[in-house]
Amino acid sequence: MTPPVHVSDSRLLGHLFSTPAMNAVWSDEATLNAWLDVEAALAGVQARLGVIPEGAGEAIADACAARHHDLSSLGARIAAASHPLTPVISSIERAAGEHAAWVHFGATTQDIMDTGTVLQMREGLRLVTKTLTALSKACSARARRWRDLPMAGRTHGQHAVPITLGLKFALWERQAHEAMTALASLQADLAVQFAGAAGTLATLGKDAAKVRSALAAELYLCDPGRSWHTSRGQFASIVCQLAIAAATCGQIANEIFNLQRTEIGELAEGAAPGAGGSSTMPQKRNPMVAQNVVALARLMAARPAAAIESMMHEHERDMAAWTMEWAVIPEGFVLTHAALEQTVRLVENLVVDEARIAANLDMTGGLICAEAVMIDLAADMGRNEAHHAVKDLIAALPGSGHSFAQALSAHPVIGKLRSPQQIAALLDPANYTGESAEVVDRIIAELG
Amino acid sequence: MTPPVHVSDSRLLGHLFSTPAMNAVWSDEATLNAWLDVEAALAGVQARLGVIPEGAGEAIADACAARHHDLSSLGARIAAASHPLTPVISSIERAAGEHAAWVHFGATTQDIMDTGTVLQMREGLRLVTKTLTALSKACSARARRWRDLPMAGRTHGQHAVPITLGLKFALWERQAHEAMTALASLQADLAVQFAGAAGTLATLGKDAAKVRSALAAELYLCDPGRSWHTSRGQFASIVCQLAIAAATCGQIANEIFNLQRTEIGELAEGAAPGAGGSSTMPQKRNPMVAQNVVALARLMAARPAAAIESMMHEHERDMAAWTMEWAVIPEGFVLTHAALEQTVRLVENLVVDEARIAANLDMTGGLICAEAVMIDLAADMGRNEAHHAVKDLIAALPGSGHSFAQALSAHPVIGKLRSPQQIAALLDPANYTGESAEVVDRIIAELG
Amino acid sequence: MTPPVHVSDSRLLGHLFSTPAMNAVWSDEATLNAWLDVEAALAGVQARLGVIPEGAGEAIADACAARHHDLSSLGARIAAASHPLTPVISSIERAAGEHAAWVHFGATTQDIMDTGTVLQMREGLRLVTKTLTALSKACSARARRWRDLPMAGRTHGQHAVPITLGLKFALWERQAHEAMTALASLQADLAVQFAGAAGTLATLGKDAAKVRSALAAELYLCDPGRSWHTSRGQFASIVCQLAIAAATCGQIANEIFNLQRTEIGELAEGAAPGAGGSSTMPQKRNPMVAQNVVALARLMAARPAAAIESMMHEHERDMAAWTMEWAVIPEGFVLTHAALEQTVRLVENLVVDEARIAANLDMTGGLICAEAVMIDLAADMGRNEAHHAVKDLIAALPGSGHSFAQALSAHPVIGKLRSPQQIAALLDPANYTGESAEVVDRIIAELG
Amino acid sequence: MTPPVHVSDSRLLGHLFSTPAMNAVWSDEATLNAWLDVEAALAGVQARLGVIPEGAGEAIADACAARHHDLSSLGARIAAASHPLTPVISSIERAAGEHAAWVHFGATTQDIMDTGTVLQMREGLRLVTKTLTALSKACSARARRWRDLPMAGRTHGQHAVPITLGLKFALWERQAHEAMTALASLQADLAVQFAGAAGTLATLGKDAAKVRSALAAELYLCDPGRSWHTSRGQFASIVCQLAIAAATCGQIANEIFNLQRTEIGELAEGAAPGAGGSSTMPQKRNPMVAQNVVALARLMAARPAAAIESMMHEHERDMAAWTMEWAVIPEGFVLTHAALEQTVRLVENLVVDEARIAANLDMTGGLICAEAVMIDLAADMGRNEAHHAVKDLIAALPGSGHSFAQALSAHPVIGKLRSPQQIAALLDPANYTGESAEVVDRIIAELG
Repeated sequence: MTPPVHVSDSRLLGHLFSTPAMNAVWSDEATLNAWLDVEAALAGVQARLGVIPEGAGEAIADACAARHHDLSSLGARIAAASHPLTPVISSIERAAGEHAAWVHFGATTQDIMDTGTVLQMREGLRLVTKTLTALSKACSARARRWRDLPMAGRTHGQHAVPITLGLKFALWERQAHEAMTALASLQADLAVQFAGAAGTLATLGKDAAKVRSALAAELYLCDPGRSWHTSRGQFASIVCQLAIAAATCGQIANEIFNLQRTEIGELAEGAAPGAGGSSTMPQKRNPMVAQNVVALARLMAARPAAAIESMMHEHERDMAAWTMEWAVIPEGFVLTHAALEQTVRLVENLVVDEARIAANLDMTGGLICAEAVMIDLAADMGRNEAHHAVKDLIAALPGSGHSFAQALSAHPVIGKLRSPQQIAALLDPANYTGESAEVVDRIIAELG
Repeated sequence: MTPPVHVSDSRLLGHLFSTPAMNAVWSDEATLNAWLDVEAALAGVQARLGVIPEGAGEAIADACAARHHDLSSLGARIAAASHPLTPVISSIERAAGEHAAWVHFGATTQDIMDTGTVLQMREGLRLVTKTLTALSKACSARARRWRDLPMAGRTHGQHAVPITLGLKFALWERQAHEAMTALASLQADLAVQFAGAAGTLATLGKDAAKVRSALAAELYLCDPGRSWHTSRGQFASIVCQLAIAAATCGQIANEIFNLQRTEIGELAEGAAPGAGGSSTMPQKRNPMVAQNVVALARLMAARPAAAIESMMHEHERDMAAWTMEWAVIPEGFVLTHAALEQTVRLVENLVVDEARIAANLDMTGGLICAEAVMIDLAADMGRNEAHHAVKDLIAALPGSGHSFAQALSAHPVIGKLRSPQQIAALLDPANYTGESAEVVDRIIAELG
Repeated sequence: MTPPVHVSDSRLLGHLFSTPAMNAVWSDEATLNAWLDVEAALAGVQARLGVIPEGAGEAIADACAARHHDLSSLGARIAAASHPLTPVISSIERAAGEHAAWVHFGATTQDIMDTGTVLQMREGLRLVTKTLTALSKACSARARRWRDLPMAGRTHGQHAVPITLGLKFALWERQAHEAMTALASLQADLAVQFAGAAGTLATLGKDAAKVRSALAAELYLCDPGRSWHTSRGQFASIVCQLAIAAATCGQIANEIFNLQRTEIGELAEGAAPGAGGSSTMPQKRNPMVAQNVVALARLMAARPAAAIESMMHEHERDMAAWTMEWAVIPEGFVLTHAALEQTVRLVENLVVDEARIAANLDMTGGLICAEAVMIDLAADMGRNEAHHAVKDLIAALPGSGHSFAQALSAHPVIGKLRSPQQIAALLDPANYTGESAEVVDRIIAELG
Repeated sequence: MTPPVHVSDSRLLGHLFSTPAMNAVWSDEATLNAWLDVEAALAGVQARLGVIPEGAGEAIADACAARHHDLSSLGARIAAASHPLTPVISSIERAAGEHAAWVHFGATTQDIMDTGTVLQMREGLRLVTKTLTALSKACSARARRWRDLPMAGRTHGQHAVPITLGLKFALWERQAHEAMTALASLQADLAVQFAGAAGTLATLGKDAAKVRSALAAELYLCDPGRSWHTSRGQFASIVCQLAIAAATCGQIANEIFNLQRTEIGELAEGAAPGAGGSSTMPQKRNPMVAQNVVALARLMAARPAAAIESMMHEHERDMAAWTMEWAVIPEGFVLTHAALEQTVRLVENLVVDEARIAANLDMTGGLICAEAVMIDLAADMGRNEAHHAVKDLIAALPGSGHSFAQALSAHPVIGKLRSPQQIAALLDPANYTGESAEVVDRIIAELG
């Protein structure tokens, strides 16, 4: 057996790219069990509907128990047969004894594998939406807590106007919630695949629709009323929305990384003692998790291309398209869940340095409230006049020896319109956070 | 002015990559008008709400009329200012005369540009969903017409079992319908962007939420109750679903291309007389449109990567992320609409060669119905036994001088179980199209 | 320990996406050994140069032997430390006893991991270029063998003019050779990474350049004379060229898939007895390998995006960029090598059906030589006149009851210019393969 | 005529995504001229070689003059014909009068269009390599100027150890040079395409190789000695290397963006007066160009996917693959050249704030030299002991009221091993820039 090589499976680095829970969903054992579950369910409903003999249903269901099937030897036989499923069917047939003839009745390989994948996706989506909910809650708690803490809003990497830290978290809560909603809706539409060799279920004659419907019910899946062998849009949508969920994680993590820069220092990854240090620099404490999440999100961003391209199936089955899904779907779930779990941890353990936030807010001597001054003056001077007066005054500040407040008071027009006290109030960031707190309240009111 | 260079804008080849209708939505004129419309609406609602002086609303709305603004000179000033909007604001201010101070009041550049984009996307989605509806209808009509026409179903490029041509079209109808539904739902959620410098609308004080709400109503958009400057998931979803719609076109076009191969010849692109020939080979009639649609769909498949990556905005505005959208969103609409329009034409003008379809179905001498024989025999011999007997018999056919039917009759077991008449019936493809017609009926019943 | 989940590591399906040889290069064991080899080599050269004590070199080299290090427990400690290498260094230190202080001297984590990756890439490139050479040879042998076999050339999926089968193989030989040359040249440039914490090797003072140079020599790598911590262009180029090599495989495999279609049947995947069948259709023989290679090539086509994006490193080290390489580089080698090995097998086992090739060539009744007729007539009628005459004549053929040859003889002008014998010669595909054979000879003369 | 819609062609925003020089290379006029040039050259060499009548060469060359061809009407006819070139050929034929029959003799559409593209690529590569040379020079000059200026080296966004500003520029110089070398080498291999309908040049009989060779010489291109209709690896390599060049720009621009952050302020985009401001915040000066370059580089990173996928041509011509190149090749040149030109401007106009660089270097009170202290102590304490002692000492600093220097002097072991003067020297960043200056010298010595 060849050793695993993908970084998500590495015993050295795999923890950065995967989670135990999601790996359990997509492991070989889980994959094989999903196939066996579908074969068992199929025989069960067919026996119940009289499509196959009465005793065959239970016997085949029993023959589909994992203990009858050896994963490693199946792997070898799959390779030898150049076929992903026939050795599994043979293995069930062996275990089914006299009922062997009714194994896999009317089905084709893709029916079993697609429906197996759908069962795994359902479980994968359950984990993803659960973690998205946790992320949403973690953000919500921090939105409440720092609802009113003023901090520098930054645009283009430059101080803009004040916001509150709570607003940042509230907007992330909403994004996490939206990603969750989109994926939950896709989960609800997951359907059984049962269509036979080329989508006509001809082997089952008049029983076709009835069996598919019963099989869907048995597996708690939707009954699509048709084949979707060649209609892969839903799978593509799922991979897209996973990448979108991962991008939300990437955005949050990147923000934390940036606000932890030595020169900013407002947030810091809460780390276990000793974690995140350097192999050579004793003073280092690195935002390792945050960076890792950004990498995961970027890796995911390129994944939808394969999922969308694999929609272009030829004819009634096309392995050159279908096989791409075997790679990209587990990748999508594994990388995204790793990003999500790490982001929840990142948010939950986040260290907020309020003093540093305050200090940064002050570092431009009130310039961060220049818009507040301008808007206030606009009432008296007109917006344009006010904008130019304030802009020119700011341009003249460097080297003048004056603070922004002093220069405003000394300005021939502005100094007459506003008192030093009024100017001080205008330059207080806490007075200029706008609807930050209201937005926090609104989002929490809606989403909890 | 530099000449256009993108292939979608080429006077030589642009018709292959764009449509006049969608180009009208994303032209410079339309973009500028969208910005002006937002500025006009903003001033209008602010005047109505008493946020700016009563007369300013109407005056600014008038100043936003296209006739006041010269696109080319605006372009030059945008380049000189390294800013995409301030020259436009100045141009409105000039036209607004004494009301200049109230132009763009409380807004920031991104408010205007994002909302402008949303207005263009609304119109773009209207065109896309309209063409998807046309595609769905064109497929529906052909699904009805060829509901019962047996043809070879193909898997892995090999004849599998019969289907009907109608089934192919019905499944495409459904895919087109699903793409349409997904996009229509995203269209319904399009929201106004109005958030001010960093998402707090601080300039408007207590009027913030009120103005945003009124602005949303004025533009017939949703009121998000917050900023989404940095929350770009919806845009990413739209680009993903456009790519998914394009992939549906790519799948249809690729199928037509394949079924038009010289050796298959079942379908053919209906072409204007003289179109699609060769510059050197007199006999050629090439499926030019089909191939072009596949190329468009593949170009689109890689587009979501940029849209998803641009979700990772830094802080309260991030041009390195936002600017990517300026490229990828119009590309997404233009390429997808070109794919859609061409696919509708392709389906509507498709030439079906029923004789060739029948001939191909017969070319394997009944082997395409081998599964029918096997399933029929399974009742008497057991499925496994039947599968092996038929498989061995087929393996021995080449060079035997016997047809499949003859060999079945001559088989020591099968020949006793089934008469030549029964065998002939089993080998008639029209008897083995399974639920093809029912699926057609089911989809038409649901979608029309 | 979590189970492997990536499809390339699957015991069920991994053989389709990986090769034992390449997996051995990128396994955890190989990765750890590569790191240990670099640490050992570093201590060795530093001891030789007097940078660390004389005895430390040998002691540390011994401490780097794989037997001292337990992969699983290292994995657990790496996760706990949120650091990919410090637990490995500690493990070496433990084994080095009194010499522990000189382990990893002057190095930083990235030095060890990057150089380790380079050692693995060297071995990976050796395998890839070896398989590309095998592919080139396999194509060359077939180019020779079918140098003169006329077959239908096809453009736009339609018969165009004749080529020879050998020409197809000769052009593939050349492509394989070009991919090999590009990768071999990148392999020759692989350089040691040794740069210390931020690219200055300050820990080593004046010995910096000397140690790097000696380390490069010890590992048979280039000495870059500088850090390339943040200069990742070479890695990106390698991933691009791997994807290009995979695309060459994809092209060959796709061609074989197409020429194996039931209606074409010129080529067929040589399969082991019993391989490639269907779970339900007894007559099927599917080109499973060919389709799989196409899927691998398409999966690779999207990989360069991550490799190129990871070039955008921030400052002197950027895990959000660097970590992406940990995923994409092994993926690139593993998927590409799988594509290559499968393509070699595909070409070597290919079954050519000469009778079917001849039959297809004839199926248009000489129309495939329409250009030959037109060019021949051009000498007498002018090219334009000839093109229109032949085109019109062909348009009138369907339903006329005449063959192309008959119609040409019956044509008022053409029939006078050319005798039936001359027409027959013009319509013989073997007379119109142009420089096919010469190109085969030319390529074989150049490449072997 | 439909209006241009691609952002690179926008009169409002196109200057951000394109350059006049590169647009001139890929404009419709240039494209048409390239086609006409190839047709003219072909007729010329064929006349010279006696393949067509003597007078036809000159007459056709004259008929290929741009003045004979109306771009807009050609566009309309191309659309009507569903063929990209036949209307152009007809237009030449009209102008060639009696020599019309010898226009396009032996050639096929792809010969003309591919060779036309190659001519445009040659010019495009000339521009790209020229700008890369300018970038390399601009970096070189700054590497010299700031060869010895110590600044904070940063890893993981955290201060690591000192580097010099010159080192940063020298490493960029090297990257620009490598990108240039790779593209120049691809440029040297550009070859003529001349292969006829399906790669056999059968129309030319024995003259085939001779005409191709002469045509190559006439156009100053390589003679490939074969068709490369279906061998697109070189085009894919060029798009990959363009994306790699763009990523180098993205890395430089992103670094400048980060070092311009309000809290860092070491570098600043040099802007024209008034440029880069905000529509609402009077104090803003935004790094607009830097952000734009990052966006361009990210857009380019996803482009190779299409170029590599388009390598998978079917048979002897495949529009579904080939057409993708018509989009992605001009995109690649235009976006990359825009990134390059903007990056050169960015580097040339960069404002360096030496005082801020020094202040940031000091902001951690010497911690940035912790490694220097540790390495120095390692000689006396052993590396491990020293690392832990310094790490523990640093961990105890916050709230201790001591500076790093004081704590070191007060340490029971360290204080005895090193005097305050020695400690001060160890904490001076200028003493710990390692081989920064030597690397600068080495790179400049090699590259200039």
